Parts: sequence; structure tokens; C-alpha cells
Amino acid sequence: QIGVCYFPEHWPDDRLEPDVEMMVDAGIEVVRMAEFSWGRLEPERGEFDFEWLDRAVGTLGEAGIDVVLCTPTATPPKWLVDDHPGILQAEADGTVREFGSRRHYCFNSAVYREETERIVSRMAERYADSPHVVGWQTDNEYGCHETVQCYCDDCAAAFREWCSEQYEDIADLNETWGTTFWSQQYGSFEAIDPPRHSAAEHHPSRLLDYARFASDSVVDYNRLQTDLLREANDDWFVTHNFMGNFPTPDAFAVGEDLDFASWDSYPTGFAQDRALGEVTADRLRAGDPDQVGLNHDIYRGPAGFWVMEQQPGDVNWPPYSPQPGEGAMRLWAHHAVAHGAEAVCYFRWRRCREGQEQYHAGLLRHDGTPDRGYHDASQSARELGAVAEFTDSSASDVADTGSLAGVDAPVAVLFDYEDLWALDTQPHSPEFDYWTLVGQFYGALRARGVQADVVSPESDLTDYAAVVAPTLHLADETLADHLAEFVDSGGHLLLGPRSGVKTPGNQLHENLAPGPLAPLVGGHVDQHETPPESLPTTVSYRGESYDYDTWAEWLVAEDADATGTHESGVGDGNPALLDHAVGDGSVAYCGVQPGEDLADALVTDLLDRADVAHTDRFPETVRVAERDGLTWVLNFGAESVTVEAADDAEWVVGSETVPAYGASVVSAPVASVSLADR
Amino acid sequence: QIGVCYFPEHWPDDRLEPDVEMMVDAGIEVVRMAEFSWGRLEPERGEFDFEWLDRAVGTLGEAGIDVVLCTPTATPPKWLVDDHPGILQAEADGTVREFGSRRHYCFNSAVYREETERIVSRMAERYADSPHVVGWQTDNEYGCHETVQCYCDDCAAAFREWCSEQYEDIADLNETWGTTFWSQQYGSFEAIDPPRHSAAEHHPSRLLDYARFASDSVVDYNRLQTDLLREANDDWFVTHNFMGNFPTPDAFAVGEDLDFASWDSYPTGFAQDRALGEVTADRLRAGDPDQVGLNHDIYRGPAGFWVMEQQPGDVNWPPYSPQPGEGAMRLWAHHAVAHGAEAVCYFRWRRCREGQEQYHAGLLRHDGTPDRGYHDASQSARELGAVAEFTDSSASDVADTGSLAGVDAPVAVLFDYEDLWALDTQPHSPEFDYWTLVGQFYGALRARGVQADVVSPESDLTDYAAVVAPTLHLADETLADHLAEFVDSGGHLLLGPRSGVKTPGNQLHENLAPGPLAPLVGGHVDQHETPPESLPTTVSYRGESYDYDTWAEWLVAEDADATGTHESGVGDGNPALLDHAVGDGSVAYCGVQPGEDLADALVTDLLDRADVAHTDRFPETVRVAERDGLTWVLNFGAESVTVEAADDAEWVVGSETVPAYGASVVSAPVASVSLADR
Amino acid sequence: QIGVCYFPEHWPDDRLEPDVEMMVDAGIEVVRMAEFSWGRLEPERGEFDFEWLDRAVGTLGEAGIDVVLCTPTATPPKWLVDDHPGILQAEADGTVREFGSRRHYCFNSAVYREETERIVSRMAERYADSPHVVGWQTDNEYGCHETVQCYCDDCAAAFREWCSEQYEDIADLNETWGTTFWSQQYGSFEAIDPPRHSAAEHHPSRLLDYARFASDSVVDYNRLQTDLLREANDDWFVTHNFMGNFPTPDAFAVGEDLDFASWDSYPTGFAQDRALGEVTADRLRAGDPDQVGLNHDIYRGPAGFWVMEQQPGDVNWPPYSPQPGEGAMRLWAHHAVAHGAEAVCYFRWRRCREGQEQYHAGLLRHDGTPDRGYHDASQSARELGAVAEFTDSSASDVADTGSLAGVDAPVAVLFDYEDLWALDTQPHSPEFDYWTLVGQFYGALRARGVQADVVSPESDLTDYAAVVAPTLHLADETLADHLAEFVDSGGHLLLGPRSGVKTPGNQLHENLAPGPLAPLVGGHVDQHETPPESLPTTVSYRGESYDYDTWAEWLVAEDADATGTHESGVGDGNPALLDHAVGDGSVAYCGVQPGEDLADALVTDLLDRADVAHTDRFPETVRVAERDGLTWVLNFGAESVTVEAADDAEWVVGSETVPAYGASVVSAPVASVSLADR
Ligand SMILES: [Zn+2]
Ligand SMILES: [Zn+2]
Ligand SMILES: [Zn+2]
Repeated sequence: QIGVCYFPEHWPDDRLEPDVEMMVDAGIEVVRMAEFSWGRLEPERGEFDFEWLDRAVGTLGEAGIDVVLCTPTATPPKWLVDDHPGILQAEADGTVREFGSRRHYCFNSAVYREETERIVSRMAERYADSPHVVGWQTDNEYGCHETVQCYCDDCAAAFREWCSEQYEDIADLNETWGTTFWSQQYGSFEAIDPPRHSAAEHHPSRLLDYARFASDSVVDYNRLQTDLLREANDDWFVTHNFMGNFPTPDAFAVGEDLDFASWDSYPTGFAQDRALGEVTADRLRAGDPDQVGLNHDIYRGPAGFWVMEQQPGDVNWPPYSPQPGEGAMRLWAHHAVAHGAEAVCYFRWRRCREGQEQYHAGLLRHDGTPDRGYHDASQSARELGAVAEFTDSSASDVADTGSLAGVDAPVAVLFDYEDLWALDTQPHSPEFDYWTLVGQFYGALRARGVQADVVSPESDLTDYAAVVAPTLHLADETLADHLAEFVDSGGHLLLGPRSGVKTPGNQLHENLAPGPLAPLVGGHVDQHETPPESLPTTVSYRGESYDYDTWAEWLVAEDADATGTHESGVGDGNPALLDHAVGDGSVAYCGVQPGEDLADALVTDLLDRADVAHTDRFPETVRVAERDGLTWVLNFGAESVTVEAADDAEWVVGSETVPAYGASVVSAPVASVSLADR
Repeated sequence: QIGVCYFPEHWPDDRLEPDVEMMVDAGIEVVRMAEFSWGRLEPERGEFDFEWLDRAVGTLGEAGIDVVLCTPTATPPKWLVDDHPGILQAEADGTVREFGSRRHYCFNSAVYREETERIVSRMAERYADSPHVVGWQTDNEYGCHETVQCYCDDCAAAFREWCSEQYEDIADLNETWGTTFWSQQYGSFEAIDPPRHSAAEHHPSRLLDYARFASDSVVDYNRLQTDLLREANDDWFVTHNFMGNFPTPDAFAVGEDLDFASWDSYPTGFAQDRALGEVTADRLRAGDPDQVGLNHDIYRGPAGFWVMEQQPGDVNWPPYSPQPGEGAMRLWAHHAVAHGAEAVCYFRWRRCREGQEQYHAGLLRHDGTPDRGYHDASQSARELGAVAEFTDSSASDVADTGSLAGVDAPVAVLFDYEDLWALDTQPHSPEFDYWTLVGQFYGALRARGVQADVVSPESDLTDYAAVVAPTLHLADETLADHLAEFVDSGGHLLLGPRSGVKTPGNQLHENLAPGPLAPLVGGHVDQHETPPESLPTTVSYRGESYDYDTWAEWLVAEDADATGTHESGVGDGNPALLDHAVGDGSVAYCGVQPGEDLADALVTDLLDRADVAHTDRFPETVRVAERDGLTWVLNFGAESVTVEAADDAEWVVGSETVPAYGASVVSAPVASVSLADR
Repeated sequence: QIGVCYFPEHWPDDRLEPDVEMMVDAGIEVVRMAEFSWGRLEPERGEFDFEWLDRAVGTLGEAGIDVVLCTPTATPPKWLVDDHPGILQAEADGTVREFGSRRHYCFNSAVYREETERIVSRMAERYADSPHVVGWQTDNEYGCHETVQCYCDDCAAAFREWCSEQYEDIADLNETWGTTFWSQQYGSFEAIDPPRHSAAEHHPSRLLDYARFASDSVVDYNRLQTDLLREANDDWFVTHNFMGNFPTPDAFAVGEDLDFASWDSYPTGFAQDRALGEVTADRLRAGDPDQVGLNHDIYRGPAGFWVMEQQPGDVNWPPYSPQPGEGAMRLWAHHAVAHGAEAVCYFRWRRCREGQEQYHAGLLRHDGTPDRGYHDASQSARELGAVAEFTDSSASDVADTGSLAGVDAPVAVLFDYEDLWALDTQPHSPEFDYWTLVGQFYGALRARGVQADVVSPESDLTDYAAVVAPTLHLADETLADHLAEFVDSGGHLLLGPRSGVKTPGNQLHENLAPGPLAPLVGGHVDQHETPPESLPTTVSYRGESYDYDTWAEWLVAEDADATGTHESGVGDGNPALLDHAVGDGSVAYCGVQPGEDLADALVTDLLDRADVAHTDRFPETVRVAERDGLTWVLNFGAESVTVEAADDAEWVVGSETVPAYGASVVSAPVASVSLADR
């Protein structure tokens, strides 16, 4: 499904009908509305105006378009803030985050929860019987502008309460955190504060718990909304639009209260503002397929996922705003669908004349005429219709109603928000970044055409042939047992550096890293170091030399075999990589942050051991992905590429030659697809 | 006139006479005093001590030197702050700007306005009958240290009041700003606050109005002073010393209450701290002539302008303080006069032993002996005397009293503070900078020896042959009509990018850019983008290839002819430049930020169309400028240059060969001057 | 003596005995304890628990290990902060430095002084009769995390009091500071505030006095502790552990209340975070010997000094944490001893599992097994034992009990905290740094194998053959007389730039620089400048060309001879260096910040004039140092080096060939040692 985010309240009333007509022409099947609309829906306390929204829902519905509504809680209006200034968030130094942008409310404000209940109930009741409203998005982008962590007095009280629930008593907290260090003992839960401005860095255990608490506050707040919505109508789906490469809150935890997750994908922005290093010309034009794909796979669950906001053209917030490549907006829709998206909604319908996002394109220009994205969206809708038709006709199951089957991933990549938080406060190098480390392993899988589920380490791993854990920083015996079970029964695990270092309380384990994972790994870490780029950093692996960067461990092989050693620096000659046969499976441990070539070597060895089919290695701008028997060929580069597939493969969209920023779809297994004429 | 800024209060009483004697020896004709002197004039509330200033005024006057006095309001003394701490400014996060430097008062403090009235009246009355005091400078450098915008409660109240005066009612404000976006509607003027610290960026319309309000606050405050001064003596001139490349307040608006503007020129500082990119060795030694010249021309009005503070040697505040080139202090005086200055006052007379500016040179060393600047100032005074004598003798008007005629500029460059504020809050690229964009077009004119008035877009343009508008970002029909009238009656207009994008309320226009200017331009903007330096950026123009940077538009030619197209990137092949014959004139539109060569090509085409005489292109360190029939040749480089002029040209100062950092003056039209032996 | 910092409170009780056994095995003779232990010693107000510390002191003592205790005042526990939140420090903008790290108390809080008295007395009484406790460390690293300067109301009151004690009356303060500038006069001491947030920079005299006041506050606070400790037991030594390259407080002043100074040495961290420019691979592995040596020599006094914390391996706080070179932890111990250390205590015994320093190594890994540092420490202990044995056996004095004689330095380097503070607030160039300037001269001495005392300018200079003063920025007649006396009686002085510029009140002197030092120098400064790196900067000196950087003066030779002139820039041809024969001695003045080659030329000329023996110039990674008749050869590089000494020289540790990061000790005068095969 191709959809769009629509703000009818920004335009004259008589624009509604032409807009809907143009949507229908483009093949748009779903429209999201009412985000940020509180001030329009309730201009004064208790004075509601739903007429405009009723009319929009009705007109869209009658045109055959499904409506998704948003609760408007991300932007409490000025009268509400003036009534209750205490709902505003505070910075760590006490500065209040004032009215004038968005996300200015505190998740732990009891007053704001009441206000939320008031507006959400009212909206839910209003549309409970609408035949056109199919689902809801709660709020918008929880945590945007670093607003998950707030330091106000309400949060202080809530944090004390949270701690008292997490720990048996204050002695338990003191022991779990380890507060003897620097005389940080607490005499009671009452003595605990948020980690506000201090002369030096805070205690890592306190910081980790504050991150957990803040994330839990979002989960609670969101649940308040999902409960109210389901109470009004149990058939609606409820989702939330998460952000890309976003650290807070824990999307897996928030997701437990959602029917499925959705997220907001802005490839050329993310390539600039949430990736280390220089950005290539190709990424400026089309983004980094693996950075985007990783997020698709994080948010994809058993019920799939939606891209709730898809970049429609140039956007306002990255450092630079070059125009996307010709066709890139179509490429992104295909890419999302190949990764399992059930819907791709462009943001926004029309460039807004007012406010903070005037430099953010829409499918229409601000004068109401079609912009570059409109044509890409229309083409995507047509092509995805053809794809659905193809799979329907080829499906044996006559009950298939046009929806593609989900992605069937043979490999899981383990991703953990608590590891992310813990490492974020103790990176130990300016270049260390959890996303980068995960991305090195994930990208190696994708360069070999392998689909991966990105899941929490606690997930059921039974159905995966192989598991890649870029790091498992916080680890306990339960996790070790969980992984041992997987490996014992024939699973193959590839484990990255900085694993098993910490207890869940963020102390060092009593034994050397990888702590409770040491028996699985068959060895331990002797030393770690974080060399700057100016120092040479190479390791051997199975007889070849490879570069690594940022993080190095000198290992001791106990039961494992050393498959590689350091070839540079003070640690020259020490083991750097281990292999350990365990039960019917195996564990490979990599003690450095691998460069691309080493990640590829490790991943292909893993796939071969686990008997997972894969392609030859594709260049970084070309990606292939299989879903429901079809393989997408996605070109994120400025040069066209030609691929080969089996002779009887049928090209459902496009052909063997995929133009710059183009996409083709072929009915063939992914492993049969390769670059021609390399 | 050569002058100097003098602080007799910093030195022993018996130093006054020797100082005045040395001033007379140097040919100094005007002295500015009393700036920052409040604490000396009124050591305790109500206890005044004018004796020292009386004596200085008298001694100088008797020596034939004119005196300009300053109101000392930029530095309210400690006893005043302690009496009324509420006068202090506040940052956007609420932090108070405490006593200890300067400019710590809020323009909207009613208390401070009373105190201002008290001290200004007292001083004005004291010197109302002095035969030596010829004029006044109000305060000092309004806005220095980013103090135009204050966020205190007095400003909050004043902003509400200001809004209520600007808008018919709150609905009018809501509509003009466009507050439906992100639920930013206001229920009443009482609900409006200054844009204090917020989680994300503020609404651009609110920011623009806050900039207008803050600038208006300065205008009001300054008018309080000018009214008091004129009340005491209507013959005095009243001026204010503005700053270089300075965004706030609107100097044109403040200027309406002044007899003429003056400004403070520090070429080697400005070249470092208010220009993008690396600074050349030449600019470290002598500054950038076009950066300085642009400011001369901004502040020059019908009554000319003064350089109230001229860099006298090394200064304390830029990142680096290399010594100026040998003779540079003289070069700057000639440069100012060539641009129309009526007086050039060096700051300061003598290096100060105490306080924040110990590393700021004076014409004298701190031991009272002549420093490098003293010799340059003396020479300048002698030479400008010779110039005046020459023009007197050659003047047909016997009433001429030694003052040069003003600059007669054939071209206007349009400069708008509101555009500057609007673009400053939405640059859309780290490299976009209003000054840089204006500078590219202005520098091209100056490299061709053309004098330009830098004026507000609303100015009367009748007398100009050509007008260059580097951008007209905020535009309405009135402005469009004004320009159409100019062009219709034979004027030639060169218009730069990002024009006609916004309404005065800082919303996007209903139609595509250049909005109301589209009929004039004969086309519109299809797309815009801000490529980083890593992407190639070239356009063609009339068959040649040129580099551009930072900003690009893909244009659609309607009535206009495309004179150039993009030759790089995704927009390759789209028009980038337009020409449109309108009435008896023409409009050229440039949809990119031009590099120097493209700016030169555009400007020379414009000049040729408008029949404006110009020189060959000079290198960036050599500038020529004509005033009153004389042409100054100004060398801002480390190598001497030789020029040619007509055979009968008379060298009034210097000769054809202008040494490093030197200046010559020749009686010849500027267009007859060219580099020899290129 | 090799020692270690031990935190038994972080580990189970039954770990004490094994730890002590491993210490004995390693040859550790002294253990520091109880730092930061307040929360453990007094879990609730008035509830003390000394049992654990008693046991540790006893067990160590019985094993023959001396104990140094720390007062735990650097970390007031949470209950104390909750009882008295007023003890917390405040930033210049008023933000409170909250509980959660360390050093959160204000030195001027009367309440905290009472609390300090309470805990220090209690501890002192407890161990007054212990035969094992040999001394005390007060608090920990005064000023760490920039906490010497606090801006709270207690400090405001104390600063007013301090000012009233420094100055006769408020007129005296006004005159000394020079407050006429910008109307900064104060009407009374009551009107004076700390230099809190202001719109622009503060008055330099106010800043300098605030730095003096803040330093004095530390001196006072520390004296409170030393008095209490000595009252309990007069035989204990009392020291404090200062930091490296640390500007506040004045360690010489604090030191007057100590028996000797100690400091915390982290070579690979300091090389990264407190040095300008890029850090070499060698320094990442072993640090910069001269940066470390300079600090050894600053803290070394008549009673020697201790390294109270010696880097034991990788540490947590620098930007990067590469592993130190193999043997570097041993190298640092030898280096410290060669510079006169009486003890070297590694920090810490065992990597801590909890809190902020989990990424800081210990001699033991966190699992209790020996880490790299343990082996280096053991070897150091053995070798230093051998060295002591050698000097004992060769000593004629039978009373010698195994301690090496102190360092006998022929040269003094003058170092002044007030100069550091004054220059730090007015660097006048982003690259100007007092430590760098001092380091250029100091490093030149050390590259020639010369030991130097780094002392205050007021020190007795009688016994030095030569004195190097990298700068004497604040200077008065008393200082001039002191130096004149030294030179008159045959001393040789080398004086660097920016000397004699300021009065002690931080005003410019009435005459040109070097002000009161001008008669000694025999010339004065005509101009100064701070060229950026992009400008060429060379001078001649005695016929050779040399680079300099950052700071340049154009000099006028009066009685002196110009030994060098500028060869670049606008100052080309002006004198840059002077020599002046005075009495039986000489004064050389260098008007630029010298590069390494010029510093070497100046220093060797000085040494030759003063008849001080020195070596050939060693490369920057090799250093030699003589103490008690022995010469240490210290290799801070990744390549082994071979040296030559006299044929009869005896190698006490190692041999002629010193491996990478190695050290040898030879019984030979330093001047007889040279690199082989250069
Ligand atoms: Zn909160
Ligand atoms: Zn204000
Ligand atoms: Zn304080």
C-alpha cells in the first residue's frame, strides 16, 4: 500500500476535494491525519471543533481511501501550557524546555496524563464507529529532539518510585549499582535524584537505570493511549511512528503494546546526521541502503511494519539538502516493501507554507501542483499493484487477498537497547558507536543478499540457522543459557567485541570478559584498547590480513581455536579471533570492530557453516532482497547496473538493467541473482 | 577630516596638554570623548563630576579641534545595577548577563530609560552652549556581543505590546505567522512569549517578528536619546557608531533618527571573524577591501558617513593579531574617504593600561610615545588636506569649503535587514550566509571599479542605471511594483537566488518562487538544493562554464530566456539563469550563489546593458574608486602594483606605482585607470 | 619505594590477606588507602565504621608495608549533601554542581569546613597511635574537573572579604585594577561579585584576583586539614596529590603547608588531553618524557616528591586508550626516580568493578589476577632495590639507609602560577599556552641531559649557575632586583617573551615591556604580534635561521646587542633576540616563542656561558638524567637505542642497549653518556 500523511487543516476547506482526487489518481490507498492537530481540534479548553476532520475522513473514505488517525499529544497547545506550566520538560541543568516547537511535555506529569486521557478519549469516541478509520498512530516520534530523558521534579519523584519497584530495598540498589565507589551510597530511595548537572561524569549504573526509567516512562505513557483507543474500538490497529537509528525509547518494549511498529524513513538525512565519517555522493542522493534496511528490520515484527513517513524529496533538517536522485523516492518504496513493509506513507502530501518545515518537500509543491515525489509515488503504487497481482496469480492459496507474504529471514541479528545505552555513556573512544558496530556486521549480511531479523537477544532463536550478535555487552547467565541452547541444538553464532563485559547492573562481571559467555566463546579477553586512526590496526584471519578500527581486544584461547591474531601495535601476536565448536553448532568470536572485508569474511564463513544460501558480494550501492518468492534488485548508486538471474526468471518490475536510483523485481530466488560482467 | 577617540579620564590630568599638542601636530581635527564614562561622570548617584570633561573640551577646542561627545549609556555603573538589577539582560535560557563587561542593560527596561534620560539630559545641558562640541554619538555599538535580543520579563511584556500594535487582533497574528502548524495558535496577545529555550527550533515567523521587535526596541531607545540631545541644542549633529557586517539592529531604521551614520572599521579583525573560509595572508595584514567597502556603502547616506573608529594597529579581539602591513592604517583612511567618508577617527588615541582592551593598539603606545598608527594618521591628514586643496582649487564653486563632494554611484545594491534575519534562522546549509551572497555580487562591481550605493529595497531607485539585488527573500506586491516601475522605465536589474520566497510574515508565498516577482523574472523555481562542497557544482552561462556553490535552483523559463543551465548533479540540464526584457529595461535572474567568475560575468553584462562605465577587472587586492573627479588606487596586497591613467591625469597623492598596502590619488575618471603590464 | 593505591572497601573482606600477600611478592613497600571512603566510614551521620580500615592497616603493617591514609573529603556523601545542599558549588551561570561524581563541595562553605573538621579529626584520632600509618594525603586532586573556581554565594561573600584584606580601601582596589575602563568602578567592597556570566569578557584584573582568591581558598581549606592532622600526631608526614599540567591552585602555595608534594602521573593521557597539536604514536604508547618530567620537577622540593598515582596500564579518561608500550609502566617508575621521586605508587591496585573508573586498569585485573602493570611494578621494585644497594655500597657515608640522594640541579626554570592565570585569560592567540612556552625551554634543557629545578621566581637563586625564565609576565621592581642580584653576582639568565608586561594588578606597566626588567634586558619591545600558522615565521640567531611560532616581538636594543632579527613578515629586519652582559653575568632575551632548534641554540649558549656540563642533543624520545652519581637512560620510543658511557661505567640496571620503552641505569656522570652510532 502506498499512503500519504495529510494535513487538511493547513489548507482552505475547498482544497479537500481536489486533493483527494489527486490522491486517487496516484493510487494512494491510505492517508494519515490529525498529527499535531490539538490546537485546531480544541482551540480553547473544552471547545472542540471536529467538523473539518469529519469532513476529511468522510471524503477520503468515500473515495475508497483508508484513514489512519493520530493522537495529537506531541504538541500540547499554548492554553494548556499556560494552564499547567508544570508539564514542561527540564534539561539536566534545570533549564525549562518552553513552548514553541514540539515534544515539550513530560511523560511523568500526572497533569499531562489527565489531559492526554481527555483528548484521546474524545477523539477515539468520535471515530469509534467510522467505517473509514482503520487504525491509529499514538503521538509522534517519541523522543525526537532528545526528549525521552527529562530532569524535572515530576521525573525525580517518578524515578524514586521506579527504583523502589526495581530493587528490594536500598541496600539492593547500592549493591547492584556499586555505590561504594566515590562514596555514592544512598540511604533511602528518597535520596535518589535524576543525574542532573555535576562537576564530572555520573555513575554508569545510575545513568543506565535512568535510561531504563525514562524508556519505561514512555512505555507507560504510550500504554495509556493504546488502552484508551482499544477501549473505544477493538478492531482498530494501533501503531506508533518510531525514528531511524534512534536510541530512546526501547522500541521493542513500546512495541509490545502496538499491533505493529512503524517508522519514519529519511535516507538522505540519516546518511548525513547519524553516521560517522564523510558521506559519499551516492548517499547524499539516495541514502545508505543498509542504514535504512537495518531500521526496516528492527521495526519489522510478525505483523510486518509500516513506513509511516517516507522521505518525499528534499528535507529541511539535515546539514545539507541536495535533491534526491531521479527516482529515489520510488526506490525507497520498493526497498521498504522488499524488507517487509505493508505500507509506505510519504510525508507529507504537500509542502507546508507555514512553520518550521517550509523547507520540507511534499508529494505536491506548496502551490498544489505535483512535485517530483508525486510521480515516484504514483509509479510505486502502480508497480506494487502489479507485484501483488503477480503473487496472487502465482499463489496456490486462492484466499490470498493481494498482500505479499512476510519476509522469511534465515538469520537473526541481535540488537539490544540496554547495550546501546550502556555503551553510549562509556564509548571509551570518540569513534565508538553502537550503530556503527552493528552496521558493520549487518551490512556484510546484506551485501550477500541475506535477509535478517533484527531482534532482542531474549527472542526465540529456534528458527534461525545463524545468529549474529555484533555485541552482547550486558550479559547474565540467563542470556548465556539462552544462547547455549541455540548453539547446542545446531545453531551457529557469530559474536562481536565488548561482549559479556557488564552485569545488568552495569558493573564489570567478576570474571574477565566475556564473563558468563566465556564458556560459549571458549576463551577470554586479556586486554582491550581503543587506538586512534593514526595507529596501524590490522589482524590476520585464516591466513589473510584485514583492517579493523576503533576497538581491539587481545584474546586468550582456552577451548577455542585462534583463527586470527593481531598484526600491529603493542598487542602484535595475540589472538584476535576465536572459533569454538559447541554441541551441534559453533561460536565464532571477533575481538575487534571489523572493517568491511573482515566482516564479510566472518559472515560468509558463518553462512557457509549454517548452510544459508547467499549471493556473491554486491558493491555497497547495490542490494538484493527476497520476499515471497520475488527478489528486488535495488540500485542506490549513480550508475546503472546489470544483473543476471535464472533464464526462466520473470521480471515483474523493470528488467536486468537497473538504472541509477532504480529498482527491479524478478521472480527468482535471491541466491540466483548476481552482477553481470563484473 | 582625521580624528581620534580619546579617553582623558584614563590618564593623569597633566597629560591633557601634551596629548592635545601631539594631536595638533598630527593634523587631527576632531576628537570623540566620554564614551563609557558614566562611572567617572557620576561616581555615586546624583554626585556629578564634569570638571575633567569640561577641561578636555576646552583645551581641545582652544587648540582648534572639534569635539564629539558620547552618551555613556553602554556601561551603566555598578551602583546603578545594584540599585536596579532588573535592568540586566537575560539569555534565552534565563541566565542573567551580569555586570563586568558592557552592554548589560535591557533596551525595554522602563527603569533604564529613566536613568538614560537622567544622564543624557544632564550631559546635554552641560554642553549645550559649548562652542567646541559639534555633535554626539549615542551610546556605543548597539548590539555588540549579541545584545539586541534579550529574553527578560520586560522584553516579554514589550513583545506582547509590540505584537498587539503590529496586528489587528490575535487572529491576524495567527494567520500571518501560520500557527496551525504544530498547534502553535495563540489565544491572545497575553499568551505570547519571547522565543526562549525550547526542545527544537522555533517557528520562523515568531523568530522574524522577535528580530523586528528587538530591532525596533533599539530604534525606540536610540530615539529617546536623539530627542533629548536635539532638545538641548538643535545645531548638533547626532550619530551612532554601528559595527561591521553586523546583523542587528536595522541600521537603516536606527539611521532615520540620525543626521548621518558612522561605523567602526577593523579590517584585519573582520577578515578573520566574520567571513567564511580561510583568510589569506594579505587579508591578515590589510583586510578585505570589499568587506570593508560594503560596510562603508551600507552606512553612507546623502550626508555621507563617518568612520567613527578606525583600526589603529593591532587589535585584541580577533582570533589572531598579526601586525597590519606597513602603511595599512593610512590605506584604510584613504579607502574610507574614497567611499565617501567625511571623517575617519582612529580608535584609540593611546593604548590603555587597564581593563579589557590592553591588547588594543592606539595611535600612541601606552607609554605615551607615537606608535605605528600615529605616523599613518599624520600622513593621512596631510594627504587628505592636499586632496581637499586640490579639489577646492579645481572646483568651480567658490563656496566650496574644503569638503569633497559625495560619491556619485551609478548602481544600487539592495540590502535588507529583514531578509538577513529571515535567512539567518533558515540558512538551509552550514555555508549559506547572507553577507557572503551579497559580497559575491558587490565584490564583482568593485573589481570593475564601480561605486555602489547599498540601500534598502524600498529606496527610490530612479537615479540608478542598474540595480543589483543579491536576493530579495521576503517580497510582496508593493516591492514587485516598485521594481517593475524601475525596470519599465529603462532600469536594469540583476536578481539573485532565494528571491520572492517568503511573505513579510515569513510564510511561503502561495505560488512558487520568486512569488510576486515571477512576472518580472519571467520564470519560476522548480527545485532548490544545497549541495555540500563534495558535490560538483557547475553551470553554463552564455556558453561558458562557471563554478557556483552552496545554493542551487532549477528554473523554468516562461517569458524569459534561459541564459544558462546546470551542468552537474541531478539537476543537469535544467535552466539556472534567466534573462527577461521588460519595458525599456531588463531583468536577469541568477538561480545559484555565483562564484567570483560568474558574478563578474553577470555584473559586466548588467553594466554593459545599463551603459555604466567600468574598468577592466582588478585582482582582489587592488581596488579603484572615484569621488569628486578623483580616483583612488588602493593596494591591499603585499606586492606593489603599477597602474595607467590618462596622460594628463594629475597624481594628487602618490604615483602610478602604488607600494604594498599603499594608496594613490589621481585626478582622472575611474574608467580610465587600469593595471599596467598585466 | 614502590607503592600502590588500595581500596579494600571495594572488595570482599576475605580478599584482604591474598591482596597483601601479592603486594609483598611484588616488593610493594607503601600503600595508600581511604581516599573517597567517607560514605563507607560514616554511612549515616555520626554512625562510624572504622573496623574495615583498622583491619587493612593492621594486616598491611604486619606484612611490613607502610600505610598512607587519605582524608576522604573529596566526596561528601549523599546524606551530608541532603543535610546541607548549600555546600554544593555553582557554575558561573548559576547552575549547581549536583551530587553524583566528586569534588562537589565549595571550599568557602563554612558548613563544609565544619564537616571536614569533624571527619578529619575523627580519622586522625583513630590512627594517631598506629605504628603503621606513616603519613597522610589531604583530600584528592584539588581542582580536578575545574572545581577551584566556584561562583556560589558563599564564594561571593568570601571574595569580598578577601578583597578587603588585599586592598587598603576600595579606592586602592579601583586604582590597582584600573576600573575607569568601561565604568567598572566599585563604590565599596560590598559591591564586588564573582565574575559570573556576562555579555562579554571580564576585566582581566578582576579575573586574576578571582584566580588568586580561589587558589587561596584551597590553601586555607587544606591548612585546616594539615593543622588537624599534625595536632593529632606531629610525626606523620602530610602531603597532597596534585595533578599534571594543572593550572589551579598554586601548588607552591599549597605546598608550604605540606611536608612534600606528590602528584598523579598519567603519561599517555596527558600527552593527549593537555598538549596542543597532534600526538605521536610514541606518545600514545609512553607519553612525552618532558611533559611528565616538567611536572616531576615542579613538585620536587628539598624533601623530594612522590608520584602518588602512577598510571598502571590503560586508563579511562583520555580521548583514546591505546595500551601502553611493553614495559612502559616500569619506564615511568625509573623516570620518576631519576627526577628525584622518593616513592612511586601505582593507581590502582585492582581494576574496580563498579562506578566511573571501570575502564581504568590496576596492577591486578578486576578478577584479581596480575595484569601487565603488576609485572612492571615488581620489576621496578627489584631494580630500584638493586640501585639502592649499589649506592649504599658505594657510599662513603655508612649512615646511608638505602635512600638515594636528591637531584642536584645546576639550572632553575622559573614557573609562576599568577603568570599562568594572567596569560590564560589573555592568550591573544588560540595557540598561545603557558605550558607550551615553558615546555619549549624546559625540553631543550632535558634534551641536553640537564636536570632543572622548576621553581617560583621569588625563590633563592644563589646556587644556580643558570636560570631560564620562559616568561616573567607579571613583574615588579622587587622581582627585577632579585634577578639583577642573581646576574650581578655571575648568574646567567635566559628570559623569554611576554616578560615584564604587567603589574601584579594585571595592568600594563607605565613603560614599554619588559617594564621593570628593561634595564636587565638592555632593550624593550617595540611591537608584538600573534601570527597564525599560515604566515611564515622565521628569525636569525647568530647567523642561522630558525622557525618560531605563535608569538613575536619586534625589539629595540638599547644597551644590549641584537643577536638575531626577524626574517619574515611585516617586522622583517627588526631585532628579535638580545644579549646583555650585566655585572659578572649575562641576560639573553628571546622575543619569540622558539621552535625546538632555536630553543636548543639558546639553551646551549646559556649552559656554555654558565659552564654547565651537558650532553649532545638527544632525540625527543630518549632522555638521560643524573641522580646521586647514577645516570638513567630512558627510552620513550618504539625502537631500541644504544648509548655509550665511559669504559669503567658500571651498568646497575640494564645495559648500553635500551629496548623500546626501556630504562637502564649506569654509574657514570650524565655528560659522559651519548648515543652510539648516530
Ligand atoms: Zn519530567
Ligand atoms: Zn530585556
Ligand atoms: Zn562556592
